[in-house]
Amino acid sequence: MTQGDERQRLARASLTHLVEPGDSMLGALLRHNEPATVLAAITAGRLPASANPPERDAGSVTRALSRWAARLAAMPAELDLAAWRRRGIRLICPGDQEWPTQLAVLGDGAPYALWVRGSADLRYGCLRSVSIVGSRAATPYGSHVATEMAAALGERGWTVVSGGAFGIDGSAHRGALATDGATIAVLASGVDCPYPAGHAQLFDAIVAQGVLVSEWPPGRHPTRQGFLVRNRLIAALTRGTVVIEAGLRSGALSTARHARDLCRPLMAVPGPVTSQASAGCHEIMRHWCAVCVTDAKDVLEHVGLAGEYLPGRRVGPVLPRDALDPETSGVLDAVPARTGAGPATIAASAGVSLDTAIRCLGALAAGGFIERCERGWRIKKHKAQ
Amino acid sequence: MTQGDERQRLARASLTHLVEPGDSMLGALLRHNEPATVLAAITAGRLPASANPPERDAGSVTRALSRWAARLAAMPAELDLAAWRRRGIRLICPGDQEWPTQLAVLGDGAPYALWVRGSADLRYGCLRSVSIVGSRAATPYGSHVATEMAAALGERGWTVVSGGAFGIDGSAHRGALATDGATIAVLASGVDCPYPAGHAQLFDAIVAQGVLVSEWPPGRHPTRQGFLVRNRLIAALTRGTVVIEAGLRSGALSTARHARDLCRPLMAVPGPVTSQASAGCHEIMRHWCAVCVTDAKDVLEHVGLAGEYLPGRRVGPVLPRDALDPETSGVLDAVPARTGAGPATIAASAGVSLDTAIRCLGALAAGGFIERCERGWRIKKHKAQ
Repeated sequence: MTQGDERQRLARASLTHLVEPGDSMLGALLRHNEPATVLAAITAGRLPASANPPERDAGSVTRALSRWAARLAAMPAELDLAAWRRRGIRLICPGDQEWPTQLAVLGDGAPYALWVRGSADLRYGCLRSVSIVGSRAATPYGSHVATEMAAALGERGWTVVSGGAFGIDGSAHRGALATDGATIAVLASGVDCPYPAGHAQLFDAIVAQGVLVSEWPPGRHPTRQGFLVRNRLIAALTRGTVVIEAGLRSGALSTARHARDLCRPLMAVPGPVTSQASAGCHEIMRHWCAVCVTDAKDVLEHVGLAGEYLPGRRVGPVLPRDALDPETSGVLDAVPARTGAGPATIAASAGVSLDTAIRCLGALAAGGFIERCERGWRIKKHKAQ
Repeated sequence: MTQGDERQRLARASLTHLVEPGDSMLGALLRHNEPATVLAAITAGRLPASANPPERDAGSVTRALSRWAARLAAMPAELDLAAWRRRGIRLICPGDQEWPTQLAVLGDGAPYALWVRGSADLRYGCLRSVSIVGSRAATPYGSHVATEMAAALGERGWTVVSGGAFGIDGSAHRGALATDGATIAVLASGVDCPYPAGHAQLFDAIVAQGVLVSEWPPGRHPTRQGFLVRNRLIAALTRGTVVIEAGLRSGALSTARHARDLCRPLMAVPGPVTSQASAGCHEIMRHWCAVCVTDAKDVLEHVGLAGEYLPGRRVGPVLPRDALDPETSGVLDAVPARTGAGPATIAASAGVSLDTAIRCLGALAAGGFIERCERGWRIKKHKAQ
């Protein structure tokens, strides 16, 4: 890596301290300028006119620069990426091998750098990934479904992406970890101080087997707004988003909205209509065309490559009588269960000729569906109908 | 009514004894001939060539006539419609005031007469009607939802149509009855001996407040095939069909299929994905585009006339902080919950100028969101965020 490259990386690292993720103004500036140029402009309070993106007016650029400069005071005096790397935390930038190129879908709102901690490769992990998100106030039902679904996806080599929160997020990560599958927690806090602290053990396990990723620099604590901005990243990184339990105000619905807006498959797991925890899932099925999914197979049918996972229609158990032709089945219907009846009665009741009735009764007796009795024929009890 | 009319009614009554409902061959014959002509042809074993429907070949007509003749022996010697009427059972025929004209959608498979028992008017009752169907092996959850939904529909003046079976059907009828709403049970047995016998009390209540209706003549016991044929009538009579709990082999799915094939709104109530009783509901949401409905309001949104029932987006409770502009909300996010912080720290953390921070902090204090403390400002505890 050249010295110039390193300077640009350091500039991107600094920008993560100064600018809130998702700020499309910075995205526009970085389309036209090197990161170090933009950083210098923030410090100077002005951008050279030649560096101004043509589609943005100079006044709004200057206002943005001064807004970002407000955080210069709180920025660490020196950013030492090598020191962070020794602590297991790496900065990845657009153009790096580990950069998830699918983030380009976010346009100017795409991350300008990502802080990553953990053993897995972020880009590779996201190639076949599904995000599973949901309410922090999950019910035992939701936690169970999230764990099972994540485990089944992990077993099939899919990465489960979530937000590391209590409730559904945590269950999804744990389900994936249980199968040695990779799992990715996208945080709204620094990767060195993942939120919530109550999930410290879970985050350790994710670091060992997957990755923590954040647009915010180490040391940063999450804000309410930050979670919403973070959610676009969860949707953009993955091939599809599954919502398992979400109240009508759940943040998971913001992830769902991003998935929909990005035209990524949006799926929801239904639950009892009497449970407020599933109300958001039902709402997005009704109004956002979220697909109803009940297990990992359903999910893979939607996010897999064409033909990779065959739909496989669900059917109940096949019963012996399914094999009967309609005429024989009709005669079987006309055979009394207990009392029994003769062929003529059965023929009249089934609406077939006597000859047909006798032929069908023979076949039914041979098949073990009916048996002889005093009054003629009756249903044989032990055969499953 | 003229004597000729009465003769044709009697012929139709006889035909209900001889021909299984839904036989499109009889429908074709009745498009070209009077019922009495067809009945005479069954007895004679042949139809005059001039009476043959042009689109059916004579051989298949003759075979149908002989098939139907198989039941002549089991037909009552004399059909006395007046006697049935004294017992509270009436025959209604196409052209009668009470005939539900929407059945024409079934084409040649439409009923050729209906046996009706009960105080309500069948045609009027079906004008604003929804069918609620589901598994006989309903769970307490499904029964609860069916009862609540039917009651809410009844309260709004809608008729609940179902099949009178144990489980969901029974709960739906009971829910409607509880609100003095009309309810219609469409049977696969005679209306004088409604099946199942265990619902005798329920059927009495339906007779008092709604109607029992059947294509089969009095005295007839149901067959397995009959239930499936009956289901097309449930779908055709109503403005839409709701499935509440159905296993993957549930007969309710046959009703759902008819509703879909007739292009009537098809709806399903979701349930836990861990419950096999809801598997059929989820299946038709995924593969038949059944709409996910959670209560009567959702149902009416789909079956009501345009604009009759406004959708009304579901929202969670509105919180005080929803009223804040994004800048003030961002400053609020930067105010520490317990320890407190001064305006400069808060400004740097929120990424706004000191002036802006001071202005927002003033507004937040006035709104009761934050309070002064030793170190500056902190979150005020009692305010719901």
